[in-house]
Amino acid sequence: MEELQTIRHSLAHVLAKALKKYYGDVLLTIGPATADGFYYDIDLGQNLTSEDMPKIEAEMKKIINNNEKFEKIVVSKEKALELFKDNPYKTEIISELPDGEEISIYKLGEDFFDLCRGPHVASTGKLSNAGFEFKVINGAYWRGSEKNKMLQRVYFYAFANKAELAEHKKQVQEALKRDHNKLGRELEYFTTVDYIGQGLPIMLPKGAKTIQIMQRFVEDEEAKRGYLLTKTPLISKTELFKISGHLDHYRESMFIWGDEEKGEAFALRPMTCPFQYQVFLNRTRSYKDLPMRLAETSTLFRNEASGECHGLIRLRQFTISEGHIIVTPEQLEDEFRNCVDLAKYSLGCMGLGDDVSFRFSKWDENNKEKYIGSKEEWDRVQDKMREILNDLKIPFVEADGEAAFYGPKLDIQIKNVFGKEDTIITIQIDFQIAERFQMFYTDADGVKKNPYIIHRTSVGCYERTLAYLIEKYAGALPLWLAPEQVRILTINERNKDYAQGVADKFIENGLRITTDFRNETIGYKIREAMSQKLPYLVIIGEEEESNKTISIRGRGFENLSGLKVEDFINRLKEEVKTFKK
Amino acid sequence: MEELQTIRHSLAHVLAKALKKYYGDVLLTIGPATADGFYYDIDLGQNLTSEDMPKIEAEMKKIINNNEKFEKIVVSKEKALELFKDNPYKTEIISELPDGEEISIYKLGEDFFDLCRGPHVASTGKLSNAGFEFKVINGAYWRGSEKNKMLQRVYFYAFANKAELAEHKKQVQEALKRDHNKLGRELEYFTTVDYIGQGLPIMLPKGAKTIQIMQRFVEDEEAKRGYLLTKTPLISKTELFKISGHLDHYRESMFIWGDEEKGEAFALRPMTCPFQYQVFLNRTRSYKDLPMRLAETSTLFRNEASGECHGLIRLRQFTISEGHIIVTPEQLEDEFRNCVDLAKYSLGCMGLGDDVSFRFSKWDENNKEKYIGSKEEWDRVQDKMREILNDLKIPFVEADGEAAFYGPKLDIQIKNVFGKEDTIITIQIDFQIAERFQMFYTDADGVKKNPYIIHRTSVGCYERTLAYLIEKYAGALPLWLAPEQVRILTINERNKDYAQGVADKFIENGLRITTDFRNETIGYKIREAMSQKLPYLVIIGEEEESNKTISIRGRGFENLSGLKVEDFINRLKEEVKTFKK
Repeated sequence: MEELQTIRHSLAHVLAKALKKYYGDVLLTIGPATADGFYYDIDLGQNLTSEDMPKIEAEMKKIINNNEKFEKIVVSKEKALELFKDNPYKTEIISELPDGEEISIYKLGEDFFDLCRGPHVASTGKLSNAGFEFKVINGAYWRGSEKNKMLQRVYFYAFANKAELAEHKKQVQEALKRDHNKLGRELEYFTTVDYIGQGLPIMLPKGAKTIQIMQRFVEDEEAKRGYLLTKTPLISKTELFKISGHLDHYRESMFIWGDEEKGEAFALRPMTCPFQYQVFLNRTRSYKDLPMRLAETSTLFRNEASGECHGLIRLRQFTISEGHIIVTPEQLEDEFRNCVDLAKYSLGCMGLGDDVSFRFSKWDENNKEKYIGSKEEWDRVQDKMREILNDLKIPFVEADGEAAFYGPKLDIQIKNVFGKEDTIITIQIDFQIAERFQMFYTDADGVKKNPYIIHRTSVGCYERTLAYLIEKYAGALPLWLAPEQVRILTINERNKDYAQGVADKFIENGLRITTDFRNETIGYKIREAMSQKLPYLVIIGEEEESNKTISIRGRGFENLSGLKVEDFINRLKEEVKTFKK
Repeated sequence: MEELQTIRHSLAHVLAKALKKYYGDVLLTIGPATADGFYYDIDLGQNLTSEDMPKIEAEMKKIINNNEKFEKIVVSKEKALELFKDNPYKTEIISELPDGEEISIYKLGEDFFDLCRGPHVASTGKLSNAGFEFKVINGAYWRGSEKNKMLQRVYFYAFANKAELAEHKKQVQEALKRDHNKLGRELEYFTTVDYIGQGLPIMLPKGAKTIQIMQRFVEDEEAKRGYLLTKTPLISKTELFKISGHLDHYRESMFIWGDEEKGEAFALRPMTCPFQYQVFLNRTRSYKDLPMRLAETSTLFRNEASGECHGLIRLRQFTISEGHIIVTPEQLEDEFRNCVDLAKYSLGCMGLGDDVSFRFSKWDENNKEKYIGSKEEWDRVQDKMREILNDLKIPFVEADGEAAFYGPKLDIQIKNVFGKEDTIITIQIDFQIAERFQMFYTDADGVKKNPYIIHRTSVGCYERTLAYLIEKYAGALPLWLAPEQVRILTINERNKDYAQGVADKFIENGLRITTDFRNETIGYKIREAMSQKLPYLVIIGEEEESNKTISIRGRGFENLSGLKVEDFINRLKEEVKTFKK
């Protein structure tokens, strides 16, 4: 059986050939395989739309039925430039290849060829079992840069056979229902506004409330674990970021304004680190002050291109449970272990504990200018970190080139409903910045030393975590995180006073409730509440009032009747306390 | 008896004459009376220091003993320009006066005259009872602008007699002890760092904790009062601020960067208003959605000159309990009343209720370009607001030119320990911005209407409020606001386990404690804790352990012994619950 990647990439050439038939002047650029198919970026004088696609798909099937051969031809760079001289994109790619390099071209049938590394299937007949289907057309900048021309990116689903395609499409349909970027807006967790900007979400009352709940949960848990809370500025003179190394290694991700040369420039902070270090620096310190565990609910800013922003996942501004632990070398392992424990605890409480994987993110020693420090130091600290991870018996993968510019990281990874992976929590070892900020402690032996610093998050970015929660629970958040826990509905107006008395008891017990005493049918009111995915509805009519009870509808069970208010309230409080999913 | 202002201003001339005697080439600029004396801004080729002042003060006394006459001379503008042709500052002032205006000059004795509106005492003999004394020399820009030359500002205390001067100096000494900008740093509530910038305080763990306590108090109280929490972005494309009017009326106070003409500029927000309106705008609204009460713990930014920044009072970044209530005209009065009630409640809980005064801040109709809207609209809304304030029986003063650019305000004013007044809470009526953002609700009569908006804070700026709390309580915050409520001290190491058991009970009850089990004398440990102004110390030795009791030292009473832990914990919980001062 052909490799799936080969099938997908071969299909991209088939698509290109089909496009060429209908649009002779189309400029083809690149057409790679993706996680669920392939795409091709094209420059066409006109707008290609989904309405054009049936004829293209029919042509693709014709090419496959013809069983056309893929034929590899190796040419010189000069010859390649000559062959593609009418296509500025291919010309640009070829020009960047080393002189003297052999360049491969794939012919497909008699009249079509494309620049390509391959490999491909031998002939299109091998694609006859493949399941493929047009997905969507998006805009995409040439080479991903806003400075370049906007191309059209034609996406296809593609799988080894039709059954797998069908299964995948079913999953996508399911995922679409959970997509936080759709569901989160429909349920009014957040919105975005064009004249404010992409990547700058407005958290509506539901989203703001859930983030408040998570924030308090984290701050309280951290206080229990010996963290000290800080609150440091979101902007600084750029001088700070010169010392920290951010201007040299992180500048393109930062918002900076003013006159840097005159020392009159400011920047929005991309990280909390150099601000929180000032707390340590506020006094002279001895080993008795360590470990110093500092935590902050911190807002950060990243200068993302507008097109890169996505829902609550990729943002220009976000809020993070940031912290730094300043330690002696002897304390490093224990404190690292504590950080992993806290991360696992918070993920567990949110029900995300089984959805994550661990990545040991190392530097890229072939790309030294991205990092500070020597190879010897990196090797030493990375070896130490691997040892700690092994001791902790965490199953991790190693990834080169994913470290922070100042040290290696343990990244806790999570996938969204569409399978895209992102980091939700990170724990980093920093062996360099303390020196830059002249952070010293006097050790028991009387010697002044630079401490190590652990950078860590304990839930990570609140907005991003909310996105994963919405997707995981399809909008029906666990009771303890639900912005609205209970709605109290009356069957008719006569029972309003009794219902208000019931409502007051819930409020006294710290539960988040709303009431719906409107003069509408109970069926209408229940349907509305259900569509908002509320955990519990309390229904009150004549029977409930005369028996001094309540009836309940919940998300996970059939209706219940004849409950005592106090009993139900106690049950909910227990659910909250135990972080029940 | 001479008016105090006349005495002060006359003394400024006496100082000027004395300076002229010793520094013939001194350029005199302006010398007004202040709240506790006067100052004179001078341009001198050299640095005047406090060491130069004894001879100046002696010369001032000599001038007073000579009983020299103040003589008013009226001259034409041309003549005035001729007289002061060697002084570019006076020349600048005179040039700006209308042509043809009569200009008054005061002669003092035979050989000194100065440009001045007066009035003055008849002769310096009238100053012989006055109590005056050199205070300090600071730098000050000519006309307060960083673009101009830095002058030296020579401050003097001055009072009608020596007893009043002595009394004032005593008060200043007392105030200095409470100054949050000194005490707040000493007690490690906050610090500032040069390479980060002025007006950008680092809240150290104590400051961050107290702000967290206040923030939760406000957010919870607002939730009880029907507010919905929001969390909106701190930056926006400038397009938003074009619509809101901030670019036209507030630009110089804003941080803005990027290319405005290309629509690629961003700004840090100076206010939350236009962001929070998006919550209302997220759906079509009817009168049934109103009043809509929105609240946010909001970080704001002001582009203050570095020299204007002061402690936690005048900042470039601060956090505020911001909120907007969107109302029908019929709801305006009730909701305004609710805002005043909430403001009074929070001030009361913090013990600041009796320290404030009320100011009705109106527009300046001679300065229309500072505001949006017509005179008719301003008159109508200001009349309505005065009516509401009268209904509420709030004793207020009226102030022209202090309104927001979009509407009148009720400002709740507070004075710091040095008598400087600032706004701590503000409640504003906005009758204009809803239209700009196309905010409509469908009224009961089916007609689409623009709502009114009340802008309000409920504690105001948290950093500023913390400053007032530190000053009011001289650092000894009430128990409910104290970052560290109790410290548990051991007399010797043998009682450590019992002491830890006691500590655990405090923690279980949600009290913020620390322990000091170090091997130091109890006297040393008590002194250290006292210097940090902690509310309560729990002391544990042999006697306490064998009797299963604790001993207490508190700020407000003599030592207590033989207390049961549970009884004392209950007493503290009651203190917290009742916001005891």
